[in-house]
Amino acid sequence: MTFRVRFAETDQMGVAHHGAYVVWFEAGRVEWLRERGLSYRAFEDDGLSLAVSELRLRYRRAVRFDDELTLDTRLVALRSRGCAFAYTLTLSESGELVATGESDHVATDRSGRAVRIPEPWASRLAALAGDGAAPGRC
Amino acid sequence: MTFRVRFAETDQMGVAHHGAYVVWFEAGRVEWLRERGLSYRAFEDDGLSLAVSELRLRYRRAVRFDDELTLDTRLVALRSRGCAFAYTLTLSESGELVATGESDHVATDRSGRAVRIPEPWASRLAALAGDGAAPGRC
Amino acid sequence: MTFRVRFAETDQMGVAHHGAYVVWFEAGRVEWLRERGLSYRAFEDDGLSLAVSELRLRYRRAVRFDDELTLDTRLVALRSRGCAFAYTLTLSESGELVATGESDHVATDRSGRAVRIPEPWASRLAALAGDGAAPGRC
Amino acid sequence: MTFRVRFAETDQMGVAHHGAYVVWFEAGRVEWLRERGLSYRAFEDDGLSLAVSELRLRYRRAVRFDDELTLDTRLVALRSRGCAFAYTLTLSESGELVATGESDHVATDRSGRAVRIPEPWASRLAALAGDGAAPGRC
Repeated sequence: MTFRVRFAETDQMGVAHHGAYVVWFEAGRVEWLRERGLSYRAFEDDGLSLAVSELRLRYRRAVRFDDELTLDTRLVALRSRGCAFAYTLTLSESGELVATGESDHVATDRSGRAVRIPEPWASRLAALAGDGAAPGRC
Repeated sequence: MTFRVRFAETDQMGVAHHGAYVVWFEAGRVEWLRERGLSYRAFEDDGLSLAVSELRLRYRRAVRFDDELTLDTRLVALRSRGCAFAYTLTLSESGELVATGESDHVATDRSGRAVRIPEPWASRLAALAGDGAAPGRC
Repeated sequence: MTFRVRFAETDQMGVAHHGAYVVWFEAGRVEWLRERGLSYRAFEDDGLSLAVSELRLRYRRAVRFDDELTLDTRLVALRSRGCAFAYTLTLSESGELVATGESDHVATDRSGRAVRIPEPWASRLAALAGDGAAPGRC
Repeated sequence: MTFRVRFAETDQMGVAHHGAYVVWFEAGRVEWLRERGLSYRAFEDDGLSLAVSELRLRYRRAVRFDDELTLDTRLVALRSRGCAFAYTLTLSESGELVATGESDHVATDRSGRAVRIPEPWASRLAALAGDGAAPGRC
C-alpha cells in the first residue's frame, strides 16, 4: 500500500503527527485483506470486529506533508479468538525506514464480547496464515 | 463550553486545523443538550441521530495549541424532522472572535432514513426552542 | 481523485463522520494542484499558505467504510490575495452524489498575515484560472 | 485529567476508536506539565519538541461516546536527551481500567535533530523526576 501524508495529518512540528500512523496501520490491515480476496467490510457486516487489544509503534524518522509512504503489512499470528499484524513503513522513494509496529486483535461480536472467529472467516484466515503468520502464537 | 486546542489538532501552519472546528461544534451541540437536561447519548441509544445535512464555517482568526476557547452554541431552528444550530467561538481570555458557523440537521433512524423527531424528544426540544430557536425555520 | 473511506473516519452512526469530508476536500486541493504541475508542499516551503477563511458543505447521502469515492475539485475564483475551490463528491461505482462544497482561501505568510500571492505562484494559478475559475470573483 | 469521549472519536463499532487514545495520552502529558507549572507551549515556543520515539498501548475495555474518563499521567524516566511517560486510563464513575500505555520521547530542535534538553527545562523536569520518575532509565 502506498499513500501520501495528508496536510491534516501534520502537526505544528511540521511532520506527520504520531497518531496518524495508527490510522495508516489500520488501513494497511484492510488492504492486506483486500489483496487476498477478503473484505473487512464484509467481516463487519457479519457483526464481527477485530478489536485492537494492544498496539506498539516505534518511530524511526519523521515524515512530512505529501511524502509518499509504502506500508508493508503482515499477519504474524492467528488463533481461534484473535490475531496479530506487523507493519513496516518506509519512504517510497528512498526506502528509508519510517516506523515499525505490531497490533494484537481480539475477535468480538456486535455487543463487544470476545468470540471465536466463526467460519468461513477462520478457515480463510488460516489459509493465509502460511503467508507468514505463526498460527497459535498470538 | 470552554476547552483548549489539543496539540494533535494543530497542523504545520502552527495553528489549529480548520477541520478541528467541526469536531468542536459537534461537542458544543452535545454540551448544549446536556446543560438543558437532555443527553445526546440517550438520543442515539433510542436509535436516533441528528445527521448533519449542511455546515457553514467562517474562520476569522487562527488559534494556536493550548489556546483556551469558549464556544457558544444555540438552537436556532426546530421543525418536525430536523433542526439547526449556530456557533460563536471566541478566545476565552480576550473575547476575540475566532469563528462562527451554522449546522443544519435531519433526524434519522438506525437505517439512516429521515424521520420525524419522536416523543418525548420533540416536546423536549420544543420546550427549549423558546430559548432562542425559531420553530419551523429550519 | 478516488479514495476509500477509512475505518477511522466512521462514527457510531456507521457512516463516515461529517468532519472527514473537510480533510478529503483539502486533499482534493492538493491533488488538483499536483495534476497541474504545482506542488502545495513547495508553496508551503516558500513560507506561504492558503488559509481557509470560509467553508460550506452540503451532505446529500451518507457513505460507509470502504466505499470508493470520487472527488472533483475546481478552482472557481482567483484574486490577488486569495482564491476559492468547489467540490463535488460522488460514489465511484454508481455516480450518486454524496456531497458538494466550497472553500474560500486567503494567502498568508509564515506569521499568518494575509499577503498578495507572490510570483511565480500568482502567474501559475492565473494560467489555470481559465480552467474554470472566474478571476476576481473570490 | 477528566474528559468525555467525543462523538467524532467513535467508530462504527460504537466505541471510541483506538487511535483516539493516542491523542488523549498526548493531552495528558500537556496537563501533567501544566499542573506542575510547566507549559508545553512555552517549550515548543523555545523551538523544542518531545518527539515520540515509541508508543505502547494496551486496551482493556471499550468506552463509548460521552463516557467520562480519568487519565493518570506519570513521568517515569528522564535523561539528558529524552524522557518517558506512563498512562492509566479509567472510567471516572466506576474506576474500571480502560487502558494503559507508555511513550518514549526524544528532545528535538526545530530541524528535528535530537538535542540535549536545554536549561532551564532540564532542571525543571529533574526537579519533578523525584515525583515518580526514574532518572536515567529512559
